[in-house]
Amino acid sequence: GLALGLWRRQAALEAAREDEEEKELRQRFMAPPVSGLRELRRRRRELRSRMELLIMETQAEVCRALAALDPGASFAVDSWERKEGGGGISCVLQDGEVFEKAGVNVSVVSGLLSEEAARQMRSRGKSLKAKDGKLPFCAMGVSSVIHPKNPHVPTMHFNYRYFEIEEADGTKQWWFGGGTDLTPTYLNEEDAVHFHKTLKEACDKHDLKLYPKYKKWCDDYFYIKHRGERRGIGGIFFDDMDSPSKEEVFQFVKSCAKAVVPCYIPIVKKHCHDSFTPEEKLWQQLRRGRYVEFNLVYDRGTKFGLLTPGSRIESILMSLPLTARWEYMHTPPESSKEAEILEVLRNPKDWVH
Amino acid sequence: GLALGLWRRQAALEAAREDEEEKELRQRFMAPPVSGLRELRRRRRELRSRMELLIMETQAEVCRALAALDPGASFAVDSWERKEGGGGISCVLQDGEVFEKAGVNVSVVSGLLSEEAARQMRSRGKSLKAKDGKLPFCAMGVSSVIHPKNPHVPTMHFNYRYFEIEEADGTKQWWFGGGTDLTPTYLNEEDAVHFHKTLKEACDKHDLKLYPKYKKWCDDYFYIKHRGERRGIGGIFFDDMDSPSKEEVFQFVKSCAKAVVPCYIPIVKKHCHDSFTPEEKLWQQLRRGRYVEFNLVYDRGTKFGLLTPGSRIESILMSLPLTARWEYMHTPPESSKEAEILEVLRNPKDWVH
Repeated sequence: GLALGLWRRQAALEAAREDEEEKELRQRFMAPPVSGLRELRRRRRELRSRMELLIMETQAEVCRALAALDPGASFAVDSWERKEGGGGISCVLQDGEVFEKAGVNVSVVSGLLSEEAARQMRSRGKSLKAKDGKLPFCAMGVSSVIHPKNPHVPTMHFNYRYFEIEEADGTKQWWFGGGTDLTPTYLNEEDAVHFHKTLKEACDKHDLKLYPKYKKWCDDYFYIKHRGERRGIGGIFFDDMDSPSKEEVFQFVKSCAKAVVPCYIPIVKKHCHDSFTPEEKLWQQLRRGRYVEFNLVYDRGTKFGLLTPGSRIESILMSLPLTARWEYMHTPPESSKEAEILEVLRNPKDWVH
Repeated sequence: GLALGLWRRQAALEAAREDEEEKELRQRFMAPPVSGLRELRRRRRELRSRMELLIMETQAEVCRALAALDPGASFAVDSWERKEGGGGISCVLQDGEVFEKAGVNVSVVSGLLSEEAARQMRSRGKSLKAKDGKLPFCAMGVSSVIHPKNPHVPTMHFNYRYFEIEEADGTKQWWFGGGTDLTPTYLNEEDAVHFHKTLKEACDKHDLKLYPKYKKWCDDYFYIKHRGERRGIGGIFFDDMDSPSKEEVFQFVKSCAKAVVPCYIPIVKKHCHDSFTPEEKLWQQLRRGRYVEFNLVYDRGTKFGLLTPGSRIESILMSLPLTARWEYMHTPPESSKEAEILEVLRNPKDWVH
């Protein structure tokens, strides 16, 4: 009788604690994390768990900041599973007042990679020693593209990701990648400086060499070769980052992720009620066409995603704008606002020193 | 005095003949051929010349047939040169009453290829023996994509091309490629049958095995793997065709090129005044998005073009629609007209037996 009563009381306490946990989780994240909150707590000291919590927090922070600016619209939240292991949470706001399409996606996947696939995942193409040709891996990240309606509000993209691969002898290879970059339809120097300055400050806390190096990498990476243009005015981009230490790189990635909202949200607030002409909307649509060209022809993440069996196509192609346009032989008149941004896309500038 | 008079009379006759030639040429073609009419006449027995005349004629025939249906609009004609050798003629009608974007492009290029580039050009990937690592080549073709405005008029694409590569020992490799295919927004069985039947008749004149083989090749080639859908309802597609003989393959290609207008124009005429709803226009825009995905991610011609130094980007990307749309997680309702076409894109049908 007594033992049963005690057990009942304990069970009730446990249930109450679980409810509390569930409530807190609902408030903090857009959906329950892929690995489960309990598992993440149990393994709270492991970097994998800390990174998963960081990407979940980043997703929620960005979604809330965006939703606050577009009160009529709301994020659709889809949790999905990957047959081969893991899953993700896709949050998409479509056809709002302020945003044409805003997607923030988290994915946490694991399984076995072929040696070839593992080599392709790593931009430096290091070879890895596999047991029976297969390598256990874990890949997680948060990625997002925000396409606003108003042509005076730029498109923004960010992605922060972590990889682990286990070699045949049990050693673990790990690395981080990521970046944040801006794609305006028209150039606003003040916005460009604010964006780059905020990123530079996040980098400078860790190492003064990081911003210049990753700013250049960003300009080089987002290059639409057949057009001789960059996709946008850049930001930062890095891959294969595995030094000075796992902890230090994680802290750097955390600073970058925390900089997304202060980088971008003030620019949206400043311009989302700007008036615009049909000609300005048309130029935005042509620039959206270029965005599609980069993402489908060059982007490594998109290409890798489309080739990976079991990947969720809708979450990968979430990055494409709602609408885009291609005109044959469109050339803006000299010294127009359209020619001004093209000049910067052809010859990237340094926005902060 | 007499000799000078004779010379003057001869020169005047020559000039008159040239004017006549010029007039005839203006009537027949959209612009002077890349190789020059005189050169083409001088080498009139060579297949290269006959093929160049065929692609010029096809361009003019198709442009005239389209322009006749869209009286308010007209084709812009651009002749362009390729620094590395050769050039082309691009004809584009944009934002007409009937056509959103209609492009018909001829290109005749020559020069030197690396062994790697030559191997990539040939879909079977035959290796070719080069002198000093370089192979003299000549490539010519006509290619076209027609995107109409009305969602009840399908998009049509065709391309007919000829390659010659000279190996180190002087032997010439040659082959033809091409095809014609249809991409409707909504399925109209009668149109599908007319289109395939017209192509089948063109093939059957040469060999009864050709249509079934090239119909299947078309369904296999225009496959958007990451969507599990074909781009359209097919037609014919072939590459690397080098038998039974140069003359016979040329005659087959000629029959196909001559079938373009009777294949497609009756369908445009039948539907270009059909009424349509905003929802039908929206579905057309989503299908245009898929068209862009195929062309930028999979199409060999586009990929090869974007990677080739000196290629004319505006002529390659002429194939992209004026406007396209991507919605996250768009799924048409069961048993709708939209679901009907998706079913056919997922499971290609035989339209003629």
